[in-house]
Amino acid sequence: MAPFSLDPVQQTVPFGEYIFRRIELLGVKSVFGVPGDFNLGLLEHIYSTNVQWYGGCNELNAGYAADGYARASHKFGVLVTTFGVGSLSAMNACCGAWSEFVPLLHIVGATSTAQQLSGQLIHHVAPKSTLSRPVNHSIYAEMVEPIACKVESIMSLDKAPEKFDYLLKEIIDTKKPGYLFLPCDLVDKPVDASRLETVDLFKPIEPVPNGLAYQIASLVLSKLYSSARPVVLGDILTDRFGLTETLRNFVQATKIPNLSTFMGKSILDETLPWYVGEYNGNVSNPDSQKFVQSCDLMLHVGNYPNEINSGHYTFYQNINDVIYMNHEGVTIGGRRVNVSFVYVLPLVLKMLNVFKLKPFRIPSLNREIKQVQSNTPISQTQLISSLQKMVKEDDTLVVDTGTVMFGLPDLQLPKNTRLIGQHFYLSIGMALPCSFGVAVAQRENGSNSRLILLEGDGAAQMTIQELSAFIKYGFSPLILVLNNSGYTVERAIKGPMREYNDAMPNWKWTRILEVFGSNDSESVKVREVADLESEIKSFGLKIKLIEIELDKMDTPWRFDSMCN
Amino acid sequence: MAPFSLDPVQQTVPFGEYIFRRIELLGVKSVFGVPGDFNLGLLEHIYSTNVQWYGGCNELNAGYAADGYARASHKFGVLVTTFGVGSLSAMNACCGAWSEFVPLLHIVGATSTAQQLSGQLIHHVAPKSTLSRPVNHSIYAEMVEPIACKVESIMSLDKAPEKFDYLLKEIIDTKKPGYLFLPCDLVDKPVDASRLETVDLFKPIEPVPNGLAYQIASLVLSKLYSSARPVVLGDILTDRFGLTETLRNFVQATKIPNLSTFMGKSILDETLPWYVGEYNGNVSNPDSQKFVQSCDLMLHVGNYPNEINSGHYTFYQNINDVIYMNHEGVTIGGRRVNVSFVYVLPLVLKMLNVFKLKPFRIPSLNREIKQVQSNTPISQTQLISSLQKMVKEDDTLVVDTGTVMFGLPDLQLPKNTRLIGQHFYLSIGMALPCSFGVAVAQRENGSNSRLILLEGDGAAQMTIQELSAFIKYGFSPLILVLNNSGYTVERAIKGPMREYNDAMPNWKWTRILEVFGSNDSESVKVREVADLESEIKSFGLKIKLIEIELDKMDTPWRFDSMCN
Repeated sequence: MAPFSLDPVQQTVPFGEYIFRRIELLGVKSVFGVPGDFNLGLLEHIYSTNVQWYGGCNELNAGYAADGYARASHKFGVLVTTFGVGSLSAMNACCGAWSEFVPLLHIVGATSTAQQLSGQLIHHVAPKSTLSRPVNHSIYAEMVEPIACKVESIMSLDKAPEKFDYLLKEIIDTKKPGYLFLPCDLVDKPVDASRLETVDLFKPIEPVPNGLAYQIASLVLSKLYSSARPVVLGDILTDRFGLTETLRNFVQATKIPNLSTFMGKSILDETLPWYVGEYNGNVSNPDSQKFVQSCDLMLHVGNYPNEINSGHYTFYQNINDVIYMNHEGVTIGGRRVNVSFVYVLPLVLKMLNVFKLKPFRIPSLNREIKQVQSNTPISQTQLISSLQKMVKEDDTLVVDTGTVMFGLPDLQLPKNTRLIGQHFYLSIGMALPCSFGVAVAQRENGSNSRLILLEGDGAAQMTIQELSAFIKYGFSPLILVLNNSGYTVERAIKGPMREYNDAMPNWKWTRILEVFGSNDSESVKVREVADLESEIKSFGLKIKLIEIELDKMDTPWRFDSMCN
Repeated sequence: MAPFSLDPVQQTVPFGEYIFRRIELLGVKSVFGVPGDFNLGLLEHIYSTNVQWYGGCNELNAGYAADGYARASHKFGVLVTTFGVGSLSAMNACCGAWSEFVPLLHIVGATSTAQQLSGQLIHHVAPKSTLSRPVNHSIYAEMVEPIACKVESIMSLDKAPEKFDYLLKEIIDTKKPGYLFLPCDLVDKPVDASRLETVDLFKPIEPVPNGLAYQIASLVLSKLYSSARPVVLGDILTDRFGLTETLRNFVQATKIPNLSTFMGKSILDETLPWYVGEYNGNVSNPDSQKFVQSCDLMLHVGNYPNEINSGHYTFYQNINDVIYMNHEGVTIGGRRVNVSFVYVLPLVLKMLNVFKLKPFRIPSLNREIKQVQSNTPISQTQLISSLQKMVKEDDTLVVDTGTVMFGLPDLQLPKNTRLIGQHFYLSIGMALPCSFGVAVAQRENGSNSRLILLEGDGAAQMTIQELSAFIKYGFSPLILVLNNSGYTVERAIKGPMREYNDAMPNWKWTRILEVFGSNDSESVKVREVADLESEIKSFGLKIKLIEIELDKMDTPWRFDSMCN
């Protein structure tokens, strides 16, 4: 942390500086955004701290990057935009974060308090339906209410540090986006900075519900002890609420056979013998489904119930007994108790007596990648097989929404390999800027993880300019562009040959990195499996883009089974 | 129009087809958007009509394009997106249209009625703050309420054609965006199509207020007849409400000296001797301001009162007497009457007796372009002078938000030259996709107008991929990229040397068209005035991009005077 520059008598800092110091104290050293008239004053204060600014090409991209940073760092993302033109442009990124439990602080530089009180129609502010005054400058804050854990519209500095801290606390606790609407005239004015030295935002406000959590943990364990064929499912909210290590330790201690859900892929250690595959209701590998349905108890940890992550709501069909738990509560024996698994799961691990577990069998499920024939030498299922040969320990894969996302559950991940994608909200184009945020988080964390981005051509076109962020800031991901001439995910649903499912044609993908400013990159187009495998194998220290020619109707088997 | 395929007995068409037929009947033959799971069914019906689909690289770009189409065609724009991921991504484009009186129909393909009623958490739908059901599928419709003339969320086909027609009527009448949220299961079902043959949406619902309009028109004329030094200002809402020809005829008949407002540029015919320049309160050419302040009566037609279009609310300072009028009413002698200028202005023209006007003098105002010295051979003011030499009759200029926008009032426009820009809402990056929509409207209209796009590098990076739309659909604009290494408009406000005002560096601008698929384009970088002038002069039938090297701190004089 940068040394404080507190006024020794007054103990104040400008509010703008308070904001960045607080962020830094919480371990976040990178913020994303786009400058604009109403946030420039705020941005000046970044230079009093060690926080680094990462400007995006546009606000949607910057929002996706902040989301990626939050996912990879397990801290929270920070996005700074300007009023209206900026904040609205980023709204879809924020709604994605909302929908997938990604904590995000979105600071919106707003018109000055005087302008807001005048009700004048200042640029960037949407008028009312009639041109009469006063104009409502709160319009943008009101519009994001449904997708924010909290919207803090500061109009004076009275208790502003407390309000800001409380907003951050909400974001950290709920894993959801929250908003600070900040008038441009307040950033330079002094606020009491003593809270920075005294207030620990990570300390729970409410007492930990130990008694109740203990009871539930005991119940969970007694169910487990009496089970002859238990199974554990690792799901996405385990990761979001910081319980991945706890779950891994539990699985390691019990050796109960375990599987990942669609969204939970990469939470569990897939190299251990008791990791047996993936489960997603009716959209599962049939062997996995059969095994899960043969168990007498399922412990589903970090469940996020939604269409995509529940095999279209077929998740618990034909399952004998289920315990599921997330931040909202634990359901056991059909009874729901409102106590977060944040309290329960660590107790389950702590109280576990492995000698009380019954012996159980680790099944050997078929995890071969079911090949689907394609009209091109490389198919999507072949691509997964080829990836399987190159992926290695500590890699991070970021996958865009599209058909390939539904092939990746078949990939067996080496130790500490991470898979990141927007598997429920499914906004195409998200992965490219998201992976930039992931790269920033990794560098900040001192990680040497290789970064591999997979996306279709249609998705890539949405946000392509953000490739230049990798180049500007010196990152070296491997970018796999799956060129199947359009929106194959849509072609599989309707209009396979319709023009509306075409993306822009004739892009020279292998020259894009150079045009966006790189003078030290590799780009290549591959049509044959051997070339694909040799090119991904030779990926090294330079940013590399591989355009992979695929058939426009080729999809992984799981996607077909989902559509039919 | 395509021949109807009405069932001869039932007189029905699928609702999806009804939508496109109605649009076509209203003269709109082009729609913009991005396909998505929930709008594919709708898009299929486009092929039963002559309406043409223009897919964008992303929804924000498609929204800007629909806006540009509406501005250029004087009809309305149509944008089709999918629920959430699509509709939220386009929200900033729609808010820009809302803020600048651009009529836009935004059709959002939504989850099926069954899914909505089930309250399930379907992909693309934002969950509630707790994961309990039912999930509110209306969330996205509610979020756009503040920036829509009407939000129509159809949940059954009962009176659906009437509801859709009424929505369109609102859009056309208010010149604002309106929304149709359309569940994906309703598009194929039959609706009564007889309204398509019988209902004229352009017929006013309410009776024309002839009596009141006549009184006001008489009052306006009597004021004019007694004025010795009248002046007319042409403002943006004149164009939006279809009164440009009426105002031009009025000015032609009266020869009253006239000027454009900042947003009203290109509404008046600048080649006539009685067009004397531009006026924007304190942000005016001093000669113009002095002249306007010397007049005894100002007739301000189509006024849009906002910060940017009123010289920061200095518009009527030191003006003797003002009549101003727009769609909401006419203010005359300090009294406001709620009758639209749509009714009043044509009557003023009709009842005008030019022999009753007093003689008045046409001033000769200095309209030379005040040169500002720069550190590069080409300055922004020099650029305007060079443009002055090449711009010709029927040209259309589209300008992005940025410093150059504030140089363009100095350009003297040839006959029927049109200037399009987002002069109030000021969302950077808007102009490039907007100009694509303009090109589509012009082609649809059989126009041979040359299209010239001016934008800074920072703005261009926001939406650059949409250049490929020009290439895909065979348009040939001239694209002037003003490369001043970042956000100069922000540098002038704060942080002139700060990194946050840098755009992405080292782009190879002159190779972008080729990379985006063009095999018949010209691209060149210029640093000298002579090269600039020769390159813009030789612009012909091919798409051409000229990168113009400018100093990062060079701005037109008007922008400086606005900032200080």
